[in-house]
Amino acid sequence: SEFRLAILTVSDTVASGAGPDRSGPRAVSVVNSSAGKLGGARVVLTAVVPDDVTKIKDVLQKWSDIEKVDLILTLGGTGFSPRDVTPEATKMCIEKETPGLLYVMMQEGLKVTPFAMLSRSAAGIRGSTLIINMPGNPNAVGECMEALLPALKHALKQIKGDKREKHPRHV
Amino acid sequence: SEFRLAILTVSDTVASGAGPDRSGPRAVSVVNSSAGKLGGARVVLTAVVPDDVTKIKDVLQKWSDIEKVDLILTLGGTGFSPRDVTPEATKMCIEKETPGLLYVMMQEGLKVTPFAMLSRSAAGIRGSTLIINMPGNPNAVGECMEALLPALKHALKQIKGDKREKHPRHV
Amino acid sequence: SEFRLAILTVSDTVASGAGPDRSGPRAVSVVNSSAGKLGGARVVLTAVVPDDVTKIKDVLQKWSDIEKVDLILTLGGTGFSPRDVTPEATKMCIEKETPGLLYVMMQEGLKVTPFAMLSRSAAGIRGSTLIINMPGNPNAVGECMEALLPALKHALKQIKGDKREKHPRHV
Ligand code: NA
Repeated sequence: SEFRLAILTVSDTVASGAGPDRSGPRAVSVVNSSAGKLGGARVVLTAVVPDDVTKIKDVLQKWSDIEKVDLILTLGGTGFSPRDVTPEATKMCIEKETPGLLYVMMQEGLKVTPFAMLSRSAAGIRGSTLIINMPGNPNAVGECMEALLPALKHALKQIKGDKREKHPRHV
Repeated sequence: SEFRLAILTVSDTVASGAGPDRSGPRAVSVVNSSAGKLGGARVVLTAVVPDDVTKIKDVLQKWSDIEKVDLILTLGGTGFSPRDVTPEATKMCIEKETPGLLYVMMQEGLKVTPFAMLSRSAAGIRGSTLIINMPGNPNAVGECMEALLPALKHALKQIKGDKREKHPRHV
Repeated sequence: SEFRLAILTVSDTVASGAGPDRSGPRAVSVVNSSAGKLGGARVVLTAVVPDDVTKIKDVLQKWSDIEKVDLILTLGGTGFSPRDVTPEATKMCIEKETPGLLYVMMQEGLKVTPFAMLSRSAAGIRGSTLIINMPGNPNAVGECMEALLPALKHALKQIKGDKREKHPRHV
């Protein structure tokens, strides 16, 4: 398969064993069912960390710099509560922001519920890895993937060094 | 009432006494008429400062850290003119960005006028206080409040520490 | 003419002489045909630089601080490929962000193609100069100009110090 994906569930509850990871397995399933549209994609790594900036950062950096996965999706920790720090950890890791991905996820999320405005998701590129924050809610993960899919394959190819000349807007 | 609000008018003209504060009183009125949808909200503090980064920052920090209000709305200073520095002062104060609030205010503002694209508003969380920049224009304040109201009560509850498990997208 | 514009083409290919600058001349033509809506605007400077942060920054700073043009449009280098660094160079130069301009360019771009979500364009104010990143694709440049034109003249006037009291939302 062409792209190697990783999914990081960020949740105090799940990390402490106090509750099941309802989001992670569902996200793996959503991503796998989208693999065709991604031109071949496989989830090669999953993990669960608590809502802790350092622990989130450590995984994002390891998966980018050492494992060199193509795409990391984080699940959860993007809201307004005091423990929600996934966007802050993510912004410390990314070298280039990708605001358009946030725009389309917000646009599609708001079609489903006004509470989508409470997503504080960040997204960006570190080395050759794309990192995207998604909400913890499994349905929202599916909606976010739907929003991104029309351009995600091209995004991952560009990050790997495809020539800009092949950019689809350069017709 | 459940939430304590504060409204900061940012205007050289008003601060110098050269003109009346047309925005502040109207914003108080708009917020009070929205209090029901916020599940009880009361404007407990208002002030006027000139378009000066340090003076804006000082009030935002005092109202967040000492007065511990739940929500600060700033009015004015978000445009393109040289004296417009409210977003810059706000970004120095917030610890977590809340881009979705900016998205919905921009989305709604553009339905009213293309000049809404000239808003440079920032928004974010400092401690347990939500800070949102709004335009100086009283009508625009009402439009922004309308855009935020469907999720604002939940935002303020989450900031106070409500469990993420109760997040409405987690149905 | 009232406003002085500058257009910077960012492209390794064009800068090295390996390919023609298809975007720059077309952008000049698009801007010139929009000059009426801008209340008089003239392209006074053009240049081509490779996808290099320092070289991009040097031109943006020179055109802002020394040439004091009113508006700089950059073309290209806003995508996801490793050499795309125009937004990073731009963010190092701007003193005030102008997110609403990015919002409307993204909104309009997505109406044309979902690949618009891959634009990482930045925009902001340095001194009395507005700097806006645009895609390298000539058609996309025209679309972006269309999105901005309803408020661009007012933006450029405000930056030059027009009183906020004259802001059109202050009806
Ligand atoms: Na939109």
